Amino acid sequence: MGLVKVSFLLCAWLFFMVFHGSLTLADDERSSYIVHMDKSFMPKAFASHEHWYMSAIESVKSTSHAYGPTLIYTYDNAFHGFSALLSKNELQTLEKSSGFVSAYSDRTVTLDTTHTFEFLSLNPATGLWPASNYGKDVIIGVIDTGVWPESASYKDDGMTAVPSRWKGTCEEGQEFNASLCNLKLIGARYFNKGVIAKNPDVKISMNSARDSMGHGTHTSSTAGGNYVEGASFFGYALGTARGMAPRSRVAMYKVLWDEGRYASDVLAGMDQAVADGVDIISISMGFDDVPLYEDPIAIASFGAMEKGVLVSSSAGNEGPRTATLHNGIPWVLTVAAGSIDRYFAGTLSLGNGLVITGWTVFPARAKIRNLPLLYNKTMSLCDSDEVLSGAPSAVIVCSDTGSFSSQLYYISRSNVAAAIFITDSPDVFKSQLFSYPGVVVNPKDGAVVIKYARSSSEPLASIKFQQTFVGTKPAPAVADYSSRGPSPSYPGILKPDIMAPGTLVLASWIPYDSVAYIGNNIELSSDFNPISGTSMSCPHASGLAALLKGAHPDWSPAAIRSAMMTTANPLDNTHNSIQDIGTGFKSATPLAMGSGHVDPNRALNPGLVYDATAQDYANLLCSMNFTQNQINAITRASYNCMNKSSDLNYPSFITLYTNQTSGRTLQQTFYRTVTNVGDAAATYKVKVTAPKGSIITVLPDTLMFQKKNEKKSYTMTINFKAVTPAVTHGSLVWIEKNSKNTVRSPIVISPAVDMW
Amino acid sequence: MGLVKVSFLLCAWLFFMVFHGSLTLADDERSSYIVHMDKSFMPKAFASHEHWYMSAIESVKSTSHAYGPTLIYTYDNAFHGFSALLSKNELQTLEKSSGFVSAYSDRTVTLDTTHTFEFLSLNPATGLWPASNYGKDVIIGVIDTGVWPESASYKDDGMTAVPSRWKGTCEEGQEFNASLCNLKLIGARYFNKGVIAKNPDVKISMNSARDSMGHGTHTSSTAGGNYVEGASFFGYALGTARGMAPRSRVAMYKVLWDEGRYASDVLAGMDQAVADGVDIISISMGFDDVPLYEDPIAIASFGAMEKGVLVSSSAGNEGPRTATLHNGIPWVLTVAAGSIDRYFAGTLSLGNGLVITGWTVFPARAKIRNLPLLYNKTMSLCDSDEVLSGAPSAVIVCSDTGSFSSQLYYISRSNVAAAIFITDSPDVFKSQLFSYPGVVVNPKDGAVVIKYARSSSEPLASIKFQQTFVGTKPAPAVADYSSRGPSPSYPGILKPDIMAPGTLVLASWIPYDSVAYIGNNIELSSDFNPISGTSMSCPHASGLAALLKGAHPDWSPAAIRSAMMTTANPLDNTHNSIQDIGTGFKSATPLAMGSGHVDPNRALNPGLVYDATAQDYANLLCSMNFTQNQINAITRASYNCMNKSSDLNYPSFITLYTNQTSGRTLQQTFYRTVTNVGDAAATYKVKVTAPKGSIITVLPDTLMFQKKNEKKSYTMTINFKAVTPAVTHGSLVWIEKNSKNTVRSPIVISPAVDMW
Repeated sequence: MGLVKVSFLLCAWLFFMVFHGSLTLADDERSSYIVHMDKSFMPKAFASHEHWYMSAIESVKSTSHAYGPTLIYTYDNAFHGFSALLSKNELQTLEKSSGFVSAYSDRTVTLDTTHTFEFLSLNPATGLWPASNYGKDVIIGVIDTGVWPESASYKDDGMTAVPSRWKGTCEEGQEFNASLCNLKLIGARYFNKGVIAKNPDVKISMNSARDSMGHGTHTSSTAGGNYVEGASFFGYALGTARGMAPRSRVAMYKVLWDEGRYASDVLAGMDQAVADGVDIISISMGFDDVPLYEDPIAIASFGAMEKGVLVSSSAGNEGPRTATLHNGIPWVLTVAAGSIDRYFAGTLSLGNGLVITGWTVFPARAKIRNLPLLYNKTMSLCDSDEVLSGAPSAVIVCSDTGSFSSQLYYISRSNVAAAIFITDSPDVFKSQLFSYPGVVVNPKDGAVVIKYARSSSEPLASIKFQQTFVGTKPAPAVADYSSRGPSPSYPGILKPDIMAPGTLVLASWIPYDSVAYIGNNIELSSDFNPISGTSMSCPHASGLAALLKGAHPDWSPAAIRSAMMTTANPLDNTHNSIQDIGTGFKSATPLAMGSGHVDPNRALNPGLVYDATAQDYANLLCSMNFTQNQINAITRASYNCMNKSSDLNYPSFITLYTNQTSGRTLQQTFYRTVTNVGDAAATYKVKVTAPKGSIITVLPDTLMFQKKNEKKSYTMTINFKAVTPAVTHGSLVWIEKNSKNTVRSPIVISPAVDMW
Repeated sequence: MGLVKVSFLLCAWLFFMVFHGSLTLADDERSSYIVHMDKSFMPKAFASHEHWYMSAIESVKSTSHAYGPTLIYTYDNAFHGFSALLSKNELQTLEKSSGFVSAYSDRTVTLDTTHTFEFLSLNPATGLWPASNYGKDVIIGVIDTGVWPESASYKDDGMTAVPSRWKGTCEEGQEFNASLCNLKLIGARYFNKGVIAKNPDVKISMNSARDSMGHGTHTSSTAGGNYVEGASFFGYALGTARGMAPRSRVAMYKVLWDEGRYASDVLAGMDQAVADGVDIISISMGFDDVPLYEDPIAIASFGAMEKGVLVSSSAGNEGPRTATLHNGIPWVLTVAAGSIDRYFAGTLSLGNGLVITGWTVFPARAKIRNLPLLYNKTMSLCDSDEVLSGAPSAVIVCSDTGSFSSQLYYISRSNVAAAIFITDSPDVFKSQLFSYPGVVVNPKDGAVVIKYARSSSEPLASIKFQQTFVGTKPAPAVADYSSRGPSPSYPGILKPDIMAPGTLVLASWIPYDSVAYIGNNIELSSDFNPISGTSMSCPHASGLAALLKGAHPDWSPAAIRSAMMTTANPLDNTHNSIQDIGTGFKSATPLAMGSGHVDPNRALNPGLVYDATAQDYANLLCSMNFTQNQINAITRASYNCMNKSSDLNYPSFITLYTNQTSGRTLQQTFYRTVTNVGDAAATYKVKVTAPKGSIITVLPDTLMFQKKNEKKSYTMTINFKAVTPAVTHGSLVWIEKNSKNTVRSPIVISPAVDMW
């Protein structure tokens, strides 16, 4: 079996690493495998599963090796099995052992990345924050690159005693002693046996739960960070930072390493998080192009789900192409990324009184005050030392050459005091690297500047830096980088589920990283960093899920997800459909944003929820074209396939057509059951917006609930004729009588995609 | 009469401007004069003094002018008189008018800048802050360059209603409307008729009380600024800024202009401050080389003193030369400047584990982490593009070439990542301009760095910026720039009176000034600025005087000053004599620091005070070699010279010897009266430390007070033989029995200086 291509995305905005592996090994050379076992086959003679697994691998020892295979990890919570260094021959022997379910090569993983609380209308007066006590007794396990425990986000001011059910620990390691955990950061563990197994001579540069990349510090502080006054990125976004669940507890499971990122370590971290008693798992990474039964996150999150732990994951940063999504796992929450209503600006004031708001993140309070403004056509290329050799100490205009970063470089080397860059390239606005005083203005404003510079005898310009505007419109919009559905790992469930803030999110960062530049030689670091990615939207959703768990401790992971999905907002702050930056600001489809932008205060009281049990997910798995062993790799043979069904009780709808069925009239019926989680009797009436060219019938069209927790079922039948490559969408909304409650599900008609 | 040389010092650390004027005018050309009048001569026919003055100047109109002379200001509070544009002929006529006292040319003025509250042991638990309600009902009038009313230091959060006795106003003007005043900044006025009179065509660039220099914003926020959280200078000195009297009221009198700085405007501002009802006047500027009777501050402060207003003034920044002091006025408080126990640092960590604390104020959080360290003898000159042309992106060592700023310039132009500058030149540590990542280390530490760089095969260095250390020792030390006594305007009173924090004091600044640089082209601004000068120590003393006024509303200006002087500390935080940076860290004499470093909590309960009345000061003036008119210019003829005496009841002693008396045995007897301001009966015993080579007799040596406010007198006789240029000093301390109270006066034997 060859190595599957996986990718590990560490903040798409920053850099993008894809590992394409195609190793060939001699049959006797050992490498890492993850092995699923059926524990019901364990002979009674063994004191524990570890003994059984050790015995199993010892028994398969190949004669060409002096010692038996090395056990890396055993797993017993999220799923049953182990990882080990095995040769191909040994693996073949093992496959014949009693209790063997499946095995696959260890693989590497793809990573994805605060006014956001305001943007999400979280407030101390009403809604989810007070209702959940700010997540006070909820534990969020974060599977990531570790944590910088000294970050202000992990101070435990105002925190009460750790919930007694917590079984985790603060594992000591390099530059990390147990006293670094506290009432906020209640646990920290690290898992790198998989990395070491692959390369026994590796020197782990930070052999502890301490974060050496920044990613885990950012995600965990976004989900559950404490209040930090005076947080900013060099004066931008200045304010009090806080996680979505500022009183929740954070436990860090470091599984990603500078020296490698392996599925076996990810599995070990998730397995331990479940054993430790976390309530929510936040995992801002994913395995690309891998079938569910070999996807460690799919496997471990099934076990987590069974234990009532919601796994919140990132959709990936491979957008805007279709079907690029990872973590499209039916039993996890899959989170897309949107923009927020905040703008980092420089205010450009011209000598004639005109004021233009430009974009800048120049990381200092440069003084550009009533300086001469110069527009010179040749000089405005700003793209070489020659062109700028005669430039005065003035504010000069740089025209759009298509290379903003190159212009910044040459401007930094010149005598110029500041530059006005004219461009509307969206790439420019994504960068937080702005190394010389200046602002970016759009071509329309640029023309105004040039006209003034040419017409005035003494043109002057001033620029005010470190300006932050909020309330910009329209927002949110789907981020171009956010990966799109349908999910190649199972397109029959509409993914992503929801969208949360992901672009230029300010959260804690490690103190020794370069996050900004001044000129071409000076690197700057910061305790807070505004970065972008679904890695950033995922922990927003994780923190909000923690709040919902705090407010509704009895809700299942499916119920929490349903509440977030059916109350999500498909409209932006102009009350129009959310736009998609990736399609040039056309209306976003649910394949980009799922049910819409998460609306936490509405999710607190969703009215109805679409619940699902582990058996329901098993029934879905049974309907997939998997072998029993492949299914068992996920379900551990705890479920049978008596009632296989592709019609999961999901709070959204997707129907697929193929090249073969394109142009034909198709019909699909969905069966759904909703649970009244409102406090009293309630009557709901359906309102359908059919996707273009489709007819939808809902039976019954009214649901009357007599009491709380009562269930009612309905069917939704869609008749449609779609032609490749059309994607159309609509919605089904249950509207409560005499109430503001609406329970909305998007409906998508999409071409099918190849499934892994 | 020729123009007197005056100088106006705007923060000696920044730039230093001296105006040497020697204009010659035609007899009929008009220029500005300040005229003192005796109001008792005003004929009853005049409705007001303004009418009288207008009539007076109209009557002297020269035939060569079509119109009468222009009146600039009339003065009626601090003294009586006016300023006007007069020709020499007209002035000669005016001199013969009834009520004329004196006249002199308008002149220009010399300008002389928070953890300081901690350094001064001010705290909310005990002592002067709670005893005075933080200065709640005290009004500080600041005579300066105006104020930036939007500075956070002038927010009125937590302030109560303005005291009803306040008669001032918030004068409207350019970019300044009345609504900018509030419960903290209760008044703002501006005075530039003197500037305009000198140059009628002048365009006043900021024609209002708004500060366009920063100086007045800094001094007023130091004296009475409100609490500002998160104040810092680019991360240095980070903390909550506050004035010495954080609940006092501030009224700004802008008298200094970008277009000129004139005595007539200063006089107008002080006059108005007294009329408005301020309790304390803070004036961080002075007139150099001018006799008392022509010194506007001496004149206006006499009137202020009569009305119970203490004038606190800066000694000047002409140190360390002897007899450079200005504002050596017997009825004002004259404040010297000291260092504080704070250090802005960069922590240099070498690859071998050594950590060296260097000096830096590089204004950003540069990331210099485990970079190669390079010492190359040629390159270490760091003084040209050629020398640095091959420099790598590393941390390089720059040897002491004597020109730190030139090295910074060339380093900024190079490829170097950071530099380690080796020098112990004190000038380097005064600058807050540090434009490229680096630290300054002393030669001893520099040798350690070089040794490591040479001996290690892979030398590495890290630098952590934005480090602030407090509690450094020894502190305070007299600042080298602080002007020294004896006072040339009257050497018979020991000046300065006290020392207060003056070096690198953080306080509010105007937002549009360049206060730091990055590289050679990027200028930065800041809302807070750490600057140095007696301009900074003066408002510390002013704010403390305001607190004392709040705690003891009945105390005279002389009593407040006496309390500050007799409790001042001659020792530093190592319990040794305060050192003088200006003499290479020798023990400071009282000619540098007065009675010592101000100790506000001790000043609250001084035990005994040396009081003085306006008549006492008049008696002193009568003893000077002045004409009656010269005396009347100050005293307005309100006092006679029946009891002239050079032996003012002052809380310090100075005896002078001349070239003629050098080497002879001299004797001087001082007569003093102390008032018991303690709450009960008290007995004090004297303890004398005689200056070297002198014998001191105090009679009686014990003072027994039966009750509060009782007065007791004593004589102190000194017999000495001094030889030019020896300055010796000692002290006389009254020690209360069974108490911690000590009432200390310094005694100085000094060569005489020429008096203005």
